[in-house]
Amino acid sequence: MSDRCFTKWTGVFPIAPTPFTESGELDPEGQRRVLDCMVDQGVDGICILANYSEQFALTDGERDLLIDLCLSQVADRLPVIVTCSHFSTRIAADRARKAHAAGAKMVMMMPPYHGVGLRADENAMFQHFLRVAEAVPIPIMVQDAPLSGVNLSVQFLARLAQEVPQVCYFKIEVPGAAAKLRGLIDLGGEAIVGPFDGEEGITLMADLDAGATGTMPSALLPDLIKPVVNLHRVDRAEAAAAYARILPLINFENRQCGLRAAKAVLKEGGVIKSDAVRHPLEGLGPAQHAGLLEIARQLNPLGLRWGR
Amino acid sequence: MSDRCFTKWTGVFPIAPTPFTESGELDPEGQRRVLDCMVDQGVDGICILANYSEQFALTDGERDLLIDLCLSQVADRLPVIVTCSHFSTRIAADRARKAHAAGAKMVMMMPPYHGVGLRADENAMFQHFLRVAEAVPIPIMVQDAPLSGVNLSVQFLARLAQEVPQVCYFKIEVPGAAAKLRGLIDLGGEAIVGPFDGEEGITLMADLDAGATGTMPSALLPDLIKPVVNLHRVDRAEAAAAYARILPLINFENRQCGLRAAKAVLKEGGVIKSDAVRHPLEGLGPAQHAGLLEIARQLNPLGLRWGR
Amino acid sequence: MSDRCFTKWTGVFPIAPTPFTESGELDPEGQRRVLDCMVDQGVDGICILANYSEQFALTDGERDLLIDLCLSQVADRLPVIVTCSHFSTRIAADRARKAHAAGAKMVMMMPPYHGVGLRADENAMFQHFLRVAEAVPIPIMVQDAPLSGVNLSVQFLARLAQEVPQVCYFKIEVPGAAAKLRGLIDLGGEAIVGPFDGEEGITLMADLDAGATGTMPSALLPDLIKPVVNLHRVDRAEAAAAYARILPLINFENRQCGLRAAKAVLKEGGVIKSDAVRHPLEGLGPAQHAGLLEIARQLNPLGLRWGR
Amino acid sequence: MSDRCFTKWTGVFPIAPTPFTESGELDPEGQRRVLDCMVDQGVDGICILANYSEQFALTDGERDLLIDLCLSQVADRLPVIVTCSHFSTRIAADRARKAHAAGAKMVMMMPPYHGVGLRADENAMFQHFLRVAEAVPIPIMVQDAPLSGVNLSVQFLARLAQEVPQVCYFKIEVPGAAAKLRGLIDLGGEAIVGPFDGEEGITLMADLDAGATGTMPSALLPDLIKPVVNLHRVDRAEAAAAYARILPLINFENRQCGLRAAKAVLKEGGVIKSDAVRHPLEGLGPAQHAGLLEIARQLNPLGLRWGR
Repeated sequence: MSDRCFTKWTGVFPIAPTPFTESGELDPEGQRRVLDCMVDQGVDGICILANYSEQFALTDGERDLLIDLCLSQVADRLPVIVTCSHFSTRIAADRARKAHAAGAKMVMMMPPYHGVGLRADENAMFQHFLRVAEAVPIPIMVQDAPLSGVNLSVQFLARLAQEVPQVCYFKIEVPGAAAKLRGLIDLGGEAIVGPFDGEEGITLMADLDAGATGTMPSALLPDLIKPVVNLHRVDRAEAAAAYARILPLINFENRQCGLRAAKAVLKEGGVIKSDAVRHPLEGLGPAQHAGLLEIARQLNPLGLRWGR
Repeated sequence: MSDRCFTKWTGVFPIAPTPFTESGELDPEGQRRVLDCMVDQGVDGICILANYSEQFALTDGERDLLIDLCLSQVADRLPVIVTCSHFSTRIAADRARKAHAAGAKMVMMMPPYHGVGLRADENAMFQHFLRVAEAVPIPIMVQDAPLSGVNLSVQFLARLAQEVPQVCYFKIEVPGAAAKLRGLIDLGGEAIVGPFDGEEGITLMADLDAGATGTMPSALLPDLIKPVVNLHRVDRAEAAAAYARILPLINFENRQCGLRAAKAVLKEGGVIKSDAVRHPLEGLGPAQHAGLLEIARQLNPLGLRWGR
Repeated sequence: MSDRCFTKWTGVFPIAPTPFTESGELDPEGQRRVLDCMVDQGVDGICILANYSEQFALTDGERDLLIDLCLSQVADRLPVIVTCSHFSTRIAADRARKAHAAGAKMVMMMPPYHGVGLRADENAMFQHFLRVAEAVPIPIMVQDAPLSGVNLSVQFLARLAQEVPQVCYFKIEVPGAAAKLRGLIDLGGEAIVGPFDGEEGITLMADLDAGATGTMPSALLPDLIKPVVNLHRVDRAEAAAAYARILPLINFENRQCGLRAAKAVLKEGGVIKSDAVRHPLEGLGPAQHAGLLEIARQLNPLGLRWGR
Repeated sequence: MSDRCFTKWTGVFPIAPTPFTESGELDPEGQRRVLDCMVDQGVDGICILANYSEQFALTDGERDLLIDLCLSQVADRLPVIVTCSHFSTRIAADRARKAHAAGAKMVMMMPPYHGVGLRADENAMFQHFLRVAEAVPIPIMVQDAPLSGVNLSVQFLARLAQEVPQVCYFKIEVPGAAAKLRGLIDLGGEAIVGPFDGEEGITLMADLDAGATGTMPSALLPDLIKPVVNLHRVDRAEAAAAYARILPLINFENRQCGLRAAKAVLKEGGVIKSDAVRHPLEGLGPAQHAGLLEIARQLNPLGLRWGR
């Protein structure tokens, strides 16, 4: 497996939200419009079925439907990453197979977790990723996020990358992300094909400085995040200035709204008809909603006007 | 809803394990034999798709298949409880509907949880249970277990029971279970139709003393747990003696084996062909396995000899 | 107790870091200079012995020494809040007594916690705060922070404020702080004398919009945070602009540095001789340190130049 | 450091509870009587200032007083282990120095932790133990318990033992303790001088089978635990039978009472005058208390009659 050469994807790969109708049904038409809007945002790729897609509130049947719908809608316009996390190794591998069969260019996975008590030790986690790698010929992005409750050491991640070459993308979104990215790149060397960050971009400048080559924000303002990533390659001071301009919106999203921010803005922008989330998640309160739109309007991302 | 009168189920309602083949497929024939063995163990009812059924390692399709298979196999010999926990209220309600349609007499649910970060506040939890109650006409058992990472106060549980009469069974398996059962019965009064415990029966005597009317152990030794429950109604000292005899096995299961104990014993007893669990769970080590069987043989529960 | 009238403190009450020598000893002279610098920063009050003071790495003897040193150094120039959190109610009350005797105008407390397992239920938490209130005649600020692992509901906090009038300040620094502040103010009414936030000010604008009347940031840039709070009372757009200017520094502190940011900047500014933290905490790496100073220099807070 | 040869302590090393008066003061006379009773229980050594000593509810001054009192009371009758855990490496080392100066034969330590958020990575944990080892010439017992919220891998523990020879005792009291002890003994070899367990002895038989050479229960029934350990060396079936006899009491202690069980029984036995615990811990309810004494009376451990 060690001589496989995977495409080096870089840039902005936002998460597509999963739109629902007011009564909580999937909204296929809205989903297609979300993806078209994202293509128009100039992103480098799209991730589906992530936590910001409310994957934790979907049935397996809805997952299957969304994989087919999203991959066929994006067609070959952009690479699509499909999240395949599941506690069961077997099910994660099945999900990866389905994603690959539908045209996914990469799969993203958290380590195994369920509730606060079910975890796997390092050997079992290694097997978990290895078996999924054996199931599909595409690269795997490890999602290192607090939601799993798993502490993935830099040593473990680097070993995984070196011994399972498909595991070559890493989305680091834990406290101290920049320092962890720096450590991972140092230790893992060329095996770390894609050091990414996430968390709506709240740590983006520090992560780019640390060597991140990609970022996975929400679909709220990727058109405004992309210039930061591009500028960083040529003029760091300009990148910092561009980042400072959008930081109030990212901060409001990250701290006050979570996954509801992108939905609210895309609804306001005529992309989707409802910004409903599935219970027990609850929609933004009026003050949060107003606060979000106030800041968003000052920056006017494409999502706020795409469907108007 | 307040004048509905639900059957008062009492006694031993063990969890049916989900047998797999060595290669990790569902084993329908093994599942049927497990259920038949449990009927022969003299249990008062059976719970399926619980955590000890490895529900966290099943696809939705496998869930559906197992609901049909198990309900038709048990037929009307015993009441069956189907676990329907899901973070999404909508999905939990759908699962409850399917369970009821297939013949379930009760559903069991944890409060909403996902990973270490996604939880609901009390209002949203209340709605979660209420909406499932509105979806089916059968009683609901709240599973109060550490795996969810949710702290359910006695006040909240009693309020739930009083305001949503279908929520009338409570399986308390948290530290200090007996004291919590006592507090719940005191506060909730007649709304607490079924105060149960769980955790393999490791706290059974204390819980029966506290007023528990039912228990949900594993399928390892329910035939030996049942006399404890029966004796407790007529001769507490005899019940304590009967419990003391089986405590070493329950303790070994609870602390050394978890859900693997019942599978190992049922395999040894010819009930199932494999005691495989789904990765990243791992089977018992040789010493654990030998230790379990040594203690089990001294007590010789039906599961150890049913298929021989 | 219900008719006591407590001073309504508002504004910026930053946390004083605890300077150490390179070899890890307390640095009394540095501590005095930190406090003098903070007075010169124009703050409205000072909090000592908080988590950003590394209270979790101090002996009781060092606490006592610091209380005396800090209170006598600040003298009556500003009100001082002393953190008195301890798992033991008795010890928390003793700490509060000492703080009051030394001249503290308020004490701050988290609910009882130790490790991941020792917590108290609502009744015991209520008693915990009540008994400290009975020990001292000054107001109590409840610190509602994730470090404790305790979920304090708005209902509980409002009840505490209404039934124990001394408990009238609340520092909310949990996810969704603004919404929680809004809910607390709605429910608690006039009993909520001081709705504050914390977390370095990363949620400050949203919290001021929600009704926060005070904030407890670090000692990194309180002179630049104060104009935001002041402006918010008269010109919200100007406040938002002032906040946007300092947000990159607050974000870098909040995500990349934690309590080490203030120490690093105060050392650079000649306020303290060492930015050492106590092991197992570790100092900033070179890249983090350089990144912090780069952003700080653009804003040039007083701490960066006070001792030069 | 590698050629130091440490005494190989084995057997039963229970934790001494810290008695308080009804009003919550230390009870020095009661403390002396507890220690004398424990000597009479025939234990092999005594551990003080552990979690079952309510170390989390003591001031530093009380710690110092208790170290002197306990070491002078036990004199040289038995080896004493002093718990020195603290988040700060410096403070843990200071505590170890004081313990050694007072005559402690060993110190026990958890890895650094504070609340749910402050932990150290493996390198910093290694340094933490190393620096304490450099501070004192006596062996160190690592306490591997869920309260810390730290997952200590077998690989890390074995490396610690091999590279810091003073770290040669390990008290394993996590889920799957027996399997972990077995793995640690396999991997660490002779560096694992003292594989111990804890948790009131609830996993004792399995741990002895796995190679544990010592156990650290509470002071409730060490005189009845000692025969199990002794018998296990010569007649395992007899040991199992002796263990089965005391298991109901251990189980009741472990699940229903925690540290309150030993205090309640020692009070009943006239060893101490009060079984008070420090708030926010709360005493046993009447039913728990009655249940405990009922089971204890059947076994009649020395603690129940020592002072009568």
